Amino acid sequence: MKNKPLILVTNDDGADAKGLAKLIELMRPLGEVAVIASEQAMSGMSHAVTVKVPLMPRLVKDEDDFTMWITNGTPVDNVKLGKHTLLSRKPDIVVSGINHGSNAAINIIYSGTMGAVLEGAIDGIPGIGFSLDDYSPDADFSHVDEFVLKITRKVLDEGLPEGICLNVNFPKISDKPLKGIKSVRQAKARWIEEFEKRKDPFGRNYYWIGGSFVNGDKRKDTDEYALSENYVAVVPVKIDFTAHEYVDKLQFQ
Amino acid sequence: MKNKPLILVTNDDGADAKGLAKLIELMRPLGEVAVIASEQAMSGMSHAVTVKVPLMPRLVKDEDDFTMWITNGTPVDNVKLGKHTLLSRKPDIVVSGINHGSNAAINIIYSGTMGAVLEGAIDGIPGIGFSLDDYSPDADFSHVDEFVLKITRKVLDEGLPEGICLNVNFPKISDKPLKGIKSVRQAKARWIEEFEKRKDPFGRNYYWIGGSFVNGDKRKDTDEYALSENYVAVVPVKIDFTAHEYVDKLQFQ
Repeated sequence: MKNKPLILVTNDDGADAKGLAKLIELMRPLGEVAVIASEQAMSGMSHAVTVKVPLMPRLVKDEDDFTMWITNGTPVDNVKLGKHTLLSRKPDIVVSGINHGSNAAINIIYSGTMGAVLEGAIDGIPGIGFSLDDYSPDADFSHVDEFVLKITRKVLDEGLPEGICLNVNFPKISDKPLKGIKSVRQAKARWIEEFEKRKDPFGRNYYWIGGSFVNGDKRKDTDEYALSENYVAVVPVKIDFTAHEYVDKLQFQ
Repeated sequence: MKNKPLILVTNDDGADAKGLAKLIELMRPLGEVAVIASEQAMSGMSHAVTVKVPLMPRLVKDEDDFTMWITNGTPVDNVKLGKHTLLSRKPDIVVSGINHGSNAAINIIYSGTMGAVLEGAIDGIPGIGFSLDDYSPDADFSHVDEFVLKITRKVLDEGLPEGICLNVNFPKISDKPLKGIKSVRQAKARWIEEFEKRKDPFGRNYYWIGGSFVNGDKRKDTDEYALSENYVAVVPVKIDFTAHEYVDKLQFQ
């Protein structure tokens, strides 16, 4: 059946992550699945690309309608390899995740999960990043199935406008069922970093990054608000850094 | 003089890059300069942050109004370290570059140079990324001085709106003088990747990333057009991935 959709699956927690296994399991009934995953965890890799060393993908699974490569690259590299080299045709969709940890609000800019999806969007491939608000490697994903399927089926059936992809975040599992799906905007929240300073055995200082997440954006049309109300938060996103409202105001005599 | 501005300087080509030396030279008369630069080249690192290993900054220069650290981190890590740990006060401005290579159009999303500047903007620190449309390590920066100074002085004097920073790109030097500065938007151009496939001595495939840059956006209000006309292209940028025009259209019954 050549009319099955080709689904490119990747993530940023590495090939062994529980969230990736969950996403593969959910995608397999929907089409031909090609997984291109990073050997190492790539959290915080954002839209990084590998330019210093070559990419070395290894084919580790080659079954009917299911192939899997493991690479030394970043999530963005994985999508580039898929789009241009490893796959026999252009994927119909890029799905990434399910990330262990939220990519709502400002987290999107640090996110390898969303980097992969945005890289697909650059070439007009619809994409969805799925993330769960739970950093644990053993996170419980059992409440997300129907929503992952519903959103993916919708995008496969209807597509997305050119250049737009979806940033989908799930609340951590609780004893209350999820209330549904909300289309919202990225909250203006940020991290207040605090570095933990230590001394190595030679007396040199080193620093572990840490910090706390602060949401100063209290309006109700945001991803953070939707998550806090136990909704699945979907932000349609695109790549355009221009502050359009300021282009004409910026004058250099 | 405690009222000198504190200027945080970084880049993504590493501490030894010619473009960084140029930027330091231009900034020193403008205030107190603190350089936090990556030991290794960090091209293509985008907004990546280091989470797997701790950061180890080394103080390599400590003079009047001039300090310099070299780190094992990314450009974004360098700004985080500056904002929160290494500097005695919040910087008045973040300047990054001068990058060897253009960061106009889609290049901004892969750019460590602009990652650093955007990281400052998250905390309300005005910032400017400077990039030259010439990848050569020996690139000639001699035509940019007056423009770097003019743009930096303007931002130091007037500030920028909260969350906005500037992506400044210079044409490669030619026998014609630069025509001036244009405030423009990010062009909708992209890379068409082509991987070069090779075999290692053990018969395994590996791939070097390559490709060509294609600008399908022919309107005249873009950074690419300004550069092609020998202007300095300035795009005011901000972090908001939301495709606002699509939030209300996206319905999940």
